[in-house]
Amino acid sequence: MSGPSSRPTSLDRLIDLALDEDLGAAGDVTTAALVPAGAMGRAELLAKEPMVLSGGGAFSRVFQRVDPEVEVRFEKAEGAALGRGEVAARLSGRLRSLLVAERTALNLVQRTCGIATLARAAAEAVKGSRTRILDTRKTAPGMRGLSKEAVRAGGASNHRFGLFDGVLIKDNHLAAVGGSIREALERARASAPRLVKVEVEVTTLEQLREAIDCGAQVVLLDNMDDARIRQAVEIASGRVELEVSGGVTLERLPALAALGVDYVSMGALTHSARAMDLSLEIEAAP
Amino acid sequence: MSGPSSRPTSLDRLIDLALDEDLGAAGDVTTAALVPAGAMGRAELLAKEPMVLSGGGAFSRVFQRVDPEVEVRFEKAEGAALGRGEVAARLSGRLRSLLVAERTALNLVQRTCGIATLARAAAEAVKGSRTRILDTRKTAPGMRGLSKEAVRAGGASNHRFGLFDGVLIKDNHLAAVGGSIREALERARASAPRLVKVEVEVTTLEQLREAIDCGAQVVLLDNMDDARIRQAVEIASGRVELEVSGGVTLERLPALAALGVDYVSMGALTHSARAMDLSLEIEAAP
Amino acid sequence: MSGPSSRPTSLDRLIDLALDEDLGAAGDVTTAALVPAGAMGRAELLAKEPMVLSGGGAFSRVFQRVDPEVEVRFEKAEGAALGRGEVAARLSGRLRSLLVAERTALNLVQRTCGIATLARAAAEAVKGSRTRILDTRKTAPGMRGLSKEAVRAGGASNHRFGLFDGVLIKDNHLAAVGGSIREALERARASAPRLVKVEVEVTTLEQLREAIDCGAQVVLLDNMDDARIRQAVEIASGRVELEVSGGVTLERLPALAALGVDYVSMGALTHSARAMDLSLEIEAAP
Amino acid sequence: MSGPSSRPTSLDRLIDLALDEDLGAAGDVTTAALVPAGAMGRAELLAKEPMVLSGGGAFSRVFQRVDPEVEVRFEKAEGAALGRGEVAARLSGRLRSLLVAERTALNLVQRTCGIATLARAAAEAVKGSRTRILDTRKTAPGMRGLSKEAVRAGGASNHRFGLFDGVLIKDNHLAAVGGSIREALERARASAPRLVKVEVEVTTLEQLREAIDCGAQVVLLDNMDDARIRQAVEIASGRVELEVSGGVTLERLPALAALGVDYVSMGALTHSARAMDLSLEIEAAP
Amino acid sequence: MSGPSSRPTSLDRLIDLALDEDLGAAGDVTTAALVPAGAMGRAELLAKEPMVLSGGGAFSRVFQRVDPEVEVRFEKAEGAALGRGEVAARLSGRLRSLLVAERTALNLVQRTCGIATLARAAAEAVKGSRTRILDTRKTAPGMRGLSKEAVRAGGASNHRFGLFDGVLIKDNHLAAVGGSIREALERARASAPRLVKVEVEVTTLEQLREAIDCGAQVVLLDNMDDARIRQAVEIASGRVELEVSGGVTLERLPALAALGVDYVSMGALTHSARAMDLSLEIEAAP
Amino acid sequence: MSGPSSRPTSLDRLIDLALDEDLGAAGDVTTAALVPAGAMGRAELLAKEPMVLSGGGAFSRVFQRVDPEVEVRFEKAEGAALGRGEVAARLSGRLRSLLVAERTALNLVQRTCGIATLARAAAEAVKGSRTRILDTRKTAPGMRGLSKEAVRAGGASNHRFGLFDGVLIKDNHLAAVGGSIREALERARASAPRLVKVEVEVTTLEQLREAIDCGAQVVLLDNMDDARIRQAVEIASGRVELEVSGGVTLERLPALAALGVDYVSMGALTHSARAMDLSLEIEAAP
Repeated sequence: MSGPSSRPTSLDRLIDLALDEDLGAAGDVTTAALVPAGAMGRAELLAKEPMVLSGGGAFSRVFQRVDPEVEVRFEKAEGAALGRGEVAARLSGRLRSLLVAERTALNLVQRTCGIATLARAAAEAVKGSRTRILDTRKTAPGMRGLSKEAVRAGGASNHRFGLFDGVLIKDNHLAAVGGSIREALERARASAPRLVKVEVEVTTLEQLREAIDCGAQVVLLDNMDDARIRQAVEIASGRVELEVSGGVTLERLPALAALGVDYVSMGALTHSARAMDLSLEIEAAP
Repeated sequence: MSGPSSRPTSLDRLIDLALDEDLGAAGDVTTAALVPAGAMGRAELLAKEPMVLSGGGAFSRVFQRVDPEVEVRFEKAEGAALGRGEVAARLSGRLRSLLVAERTALNLVQRTCGIATLARAAAEAVKGSRTRILDTRKTAPGMRGLSKEAVRAGGASNHRFGLFDGVLIKDNHLAAVGGSIREALERARASAPRLVKVEVEVTTLEQLREAIDCGAQVVLLDNMDDARIRQAVEIASGRVELEVSGGVTLERLPALAALGVDYVSMGALTHSARAMDLSLEIEAAP
Repeated sequence: MSGPSSRPTSLDRLIDLALDEDLGAAGDVTTAALVPAGAMGRAELLAKEPMVLSGGGAFSRVFQRVDPEVEVRFEKAEGAALGRGEVAARLSGRLRSLLVAERTALNLVQRTCGIATLARAAAEAVKGSRTRILDTRKTAPGMRGLSKEAVRAGGASNHRFGLFDGVLIKDNHLAAVGGSIREALERARASAPRLVKVEVEVTTLEQLREAIDCGAQVVLLDNMDDARIRQAVEIASGRVELEVSGGVTLERLPALAALGVDYVSMGALTHSARAMDLSLEIEAAP
Repeated sequence: MSGPSSRPTSLDRLIDLALDEDLGAAGDVTTAALVPAGAMGRAELLAKEPMVLSGGGAFSRVFQRVDPEVEVRFEKAEGAALGRGEVAARLSGRLRSLLVAERTALNLVQRTCGIATLARAAAEAVKGSRTRILDTRKTAPGMRGLSKEAVRAGGASNHRFGLFDGVLIKDNHLAAVGGSIREALERARASAPRLVKVEVEVTTLEQLREAIDCGAQVVLLDNMDDARIRQAVEIASGRVELEVSGGVTLERLPALAALGVDYVSMGALTHSARAMDLSLEIEAAP
Repeated sequence: MSGPSSRPTSLDRLIDLALDEDLGAAGDVTTAALVPAGAMGRAELLAKEPMVLSGGGAFSRVFQRVDPEVEVRFEKAEGAALGRGEVAARLSGRLRSLLVAERTALNLVQRTCGIATLARAAAEAVKGSRTRILDTRKTAPGMRGLSKEAVRAGGASNHRFGLFDGVLIKDNHLAAVGGSIREALERARASAPRLVKVEVEVTTLEQLREAIDCGAQVVLLDNMDDARIRQAVEIASGRVELEVSGGVTLERLPALAALGVDYVSMGALTHSARAMDLSLEIEAAP
Repeated sequence: MSGPSSRPTSLDRLIDLALDEDLGAAGDVTTAALVPAGAMGRAELLAKEPMVLSGGGAFSRVFQRVDPEVEVRFEKAEGAALGRGEVAARLSGRLRSLLVAERTALNLVQRTCGIATLARAAAEAVKGSRTRILDTRKTAPGMRGLSKEAVRAGGASNHRFGLFDGVLIKDNHLAAVGGSIREALERARASAPRLVKVEVEVTTLEQLREAIDCGAQVVLLDNMDDARIRQAVEIASGRVELEVSGGVTLERLPALAALGVDYVSMGALTHSARAMDLSLEIEAAP
């Protein structure tokens, strides 16, 4: 949820951390030496290559933390496609503030645009099928929320936010209850909060059958090849949602979509998206 | 500086932020439901592809924040090359704690190893020359310190840490003093702390000559082609250190080294390094 | 002290904690899915049963923390009696913000009104006598200040705020100086800050006499029956203030007031007041 | 999740807030004046009335925050029934530390035991039926997690933890989409994270039928009388889970259980539980 | 209150602030470059001139924050007189940790020893009389607690700690109630917490008489000369405690003591004490 | 860097700490009792003796933290000389807010003006020579930034801000590398960030020669007498900058300047400056 009605405590903590590590206790010694305190400036945020925009709110917030009087106006909306050379946003305010916040703000928005652009490519690769692309929890530290927003901006969907808003039973959890999927599902349903669903990870088709029999709501097929996945789809035949996970690349997506799985989750969306090339063109106001 | 004698306040802030966004206020509902509070476990941190290790201290610190009694012992040192399948570290402690901290710790170390591995490749590309590879301030928010350590672990060097520990005069700063490099250098020397050096960015050879005449200590050649850089090296002839910057790729490094520049800075080291594939193999203790 | 000239650091810490545990890192997923970011709304805070109002400032502050543009206007003052169905406050602002803050704000004000209502009943029970009702330090964690304000709003008085603004010598402290009230009073006067009074808790009339002789300023009669208390009042005969404490109920108050004690302190005012029934009637603005 | 493998950041924030408001910047002036720094002590936590124990972890944590060397050993487990006069825990450590932490620790545990005791009574009232008792989000600020633990300790179950781990569509959300339950459910499923269930609140049987037709997973029957609830159970006939909510008292529980609803949620469990009478008997070590 | 049984939250906040400003995000670059991580060291804290010791706890705490394994053992107690060249404390631990914490720890202890030394001189100047020396709230920001401890270590006494633990009615407060001392005292007694005393500042003997008539407990004589003070003492004749304040120097103290006032408060004790000369002699362990 | 374009995180932390220790959790009980919430006031900040102004931004910030609606307008600029009785600033706003913030704001500005005034005297003492006066890291905890600004306001210069923005090799560091200045300088240059200069402390002229030979950029002459310093200046003959340090007084400055050293650093500027006498004259608005 963006806009003034959200309450992004964790975003502010991340921005403060980034500003603190860039400014230290001594601040921007170059700007302090050379730019008069009263000088005003303007700036444009430019896309230097084609990309999908995301993270505008965080970009603006960096400038607000440095100086509440800097104005940032985005020309494009979250999720918009930007061509090379397009202006994403225009800024005005004290020249010192623009210079102080520049790098921290760019470091954020270059990453969120990178994620949104990759998510867009993945979503396009399965377009027209029933399959939806999901993200994972493999996000840069402190960027969970921004990364999940960028995934949605690109047109893909969110898996659970963290460890708290969904039960996902993995092999280690199964081992802790003696390997029994039934036992694991029963315990999870008994103690988990009531509005949280239960997903179980399986590596064999036998486990898949057991999970379906025991009333799992979602099953994650871990590192299976296409033949196995096809069998799994037949076994499930709609009684349970199926998620494919494990080393999925953009290239493999059309084939997975053709198999009819409900979800494909991709860690690379958030852990290895390349930073997009955006620059801030600053100039002193006349 | 790592080890107990450092005081990584900002690292703890980043780890807390990452744990908070993964655990929320409700915690790990799956582990709470399925893993007994008293169960103990062991784990191995495995390299799933060749890489350079960095970030072991941060990885360990995540587990300590979750549970001070988890023991993490690294088998390999910061900067070591890991082969596919090699064990980087062994852990033991409460099974719940291992599961709760797993993802947050991996999210950190996968990124730091990615940076170190890329820095190693860059350092190798200029080996034997006088040229040293430098990083930039284009780091993920909150990861400035970890990223700089990873760059050193890979064998490259650090540019300034932030805006506070070096004067770097860019075009916007020049514009603020009417474009005069002399004026900018004088003001910078007058007000900056005494142990901080002054670097100035130039885009023309005329500017380079002016900078040298005015006593700049380092000059950054911004986005120049090889021919220009060659002329710059001749002009400087050792009176000033030269740094090449702007869209530098691994492929271009040997040519730049051959030109005899002192430094080449690469934003990609920290803004676009791919996450390395590391996994944590957890098992219950017998 | 309420209003903009106070500096309720601890109130903000409590509100942030409450908002964080309700919103987590992922926020209000229902509102994000269903309520447009731009939708505006209005709301009324309604008393569903008769009560004394307290905590309006904290109620308003919750909305301000979520969204500084929400307007909250109280129709009734701190300490006012509300009838069933009366409107205590009117709100307007973004519909999302009203929904996000609703529960956290109600959780606060329902408790403060509960305390004020109970304090009013206690104050009424001793009306016309010299006896004043005091609260204790038995407050919900984080709600010390709000609870003390609610007690005053109800017409009762505040005992010390915490361990720092008054010396209260209990049996354990006496034991630490060998049981001597004289010794305890002398040490307390020697080292305590100069503007802080000294109160001593006694369980026997002998101790009361010793306390008076040694210059105690206030004496707490711990768990005495009415006969004993009557004797104590005679012994004191105005030379020292007397406080009655221990399992006091509303029913017992008139009798205690008739005995002529200066103070009766009641833990129940703050530890067991029932939450008042208040609701927020929200509607979309036309 | 309790024990050292949890990471109760929010619990520490609450405890620090409570200690800060009790100690201020000046600390415990009475103890500083009267109790020698080196004096050691022992203490027992005593139940002064029958109750169900909960919150032992938080109680211990208060002492650890004040002085990590205080030892707290609980004699009874979370959820155990305590008789009048039973010892719940034994403590030893510096006498000053015991005195400084006493009130803050008691303020916490008296409330959590109150909630657990009330939850036990409610759970007993529906024993043998299919109905389970649920809590709500009507918790004291900062005590969400402790309150939810106490509810489970008493034998009741948890509804969602906050606004982030479940979709609950109330009348205001419906109004925001023009009153259409279908529209609301579709939007919620489209944007909510994948492992979160969707519950919808209805006030009429027509709405209940629409919710079932549109695939709601849980339906909340808001403020219906027994006759209506009986009809709702028939209509649902197992296709959807039913939750009864609104002004439920202990007395009404057996009748509701007889109607065969799945859940009854009670705000009073957490908003109006009385503080249990527990005391800390401290004595100097010989 | 010092030692592990205290809970000096504000001290840790001050130390963290001091360490953060000295270390920034980049740390001690000299030590990182030159001192091996494993090197051990020893150190002595030496008095380079005669002084009264105070602040040993804070000095030790700085090293603990940097590295919990550094050991600090004080050879002299709080309040002890140190001769030139005397060893106040001995330290051992990692050499890096000793170097990193050195300046921050010295900056603290040099100031606290300065205050204690000046307080000792003031206390000596009134020795044998009934007069006690008081401090004020004129302390360096963040050093209120440390400064008050140093005053006591020197043998003087503490006035109120802050605005919260004592009522002190000054001219501005009087003006706010129309100048009536009676009105001010009544209002203060009605709303202030019960264990807090009431002091009133007067500038004339008429005001003094009014204050005594109205039951003030302490009266502050603001900027009066000796003749006036003598009259004030006669007027008071023991019915109220008298405090002299305003530009008091060490030289004037014996005369004030001879007049028989109860208290003399001196802002200079904490606002202008000179830093004592202490040094830390560090050497590598063999 | 002052003004709204700076981001003085650490200043706010210091101010909050100072306000918290003065207000505690209970606030200003005198003002709460006597001054109506709505009363407005005005105030003047008066110099009671001649001084150099510094710290106006921090002074204003204290009032803003207490009440953002208080207006503070400085009549004199940072670095201005104030005569006795001159008005430095005028304030208006809620009377309560003025009273609550008064002491904390004065405690700050009295210290910063003290430092600026002493720095001005030192700068005047070397006027006309090449020598510049430097500060040190001997600042009150939390006041590093404010102290450095005050030094500049007085006309002296800043040495490094902390341990992070300059390499200063002292005897302990030398010892850690076996006493070799060459070794120390090489290691420092190899690992320190690139824009940071290297200074080395020497106690003999032999060490000075070695430092110059090894390319040190600045050399600190530790505790040398005038004869030695004269020899050092001759040896250096402009190849390296020379800093004199150790027990320097105002009286010795002209002689040091005559010797031709580049810098003289004085710890007393920040560790022992006397607090200037400033008062806040508050009155209720008509």
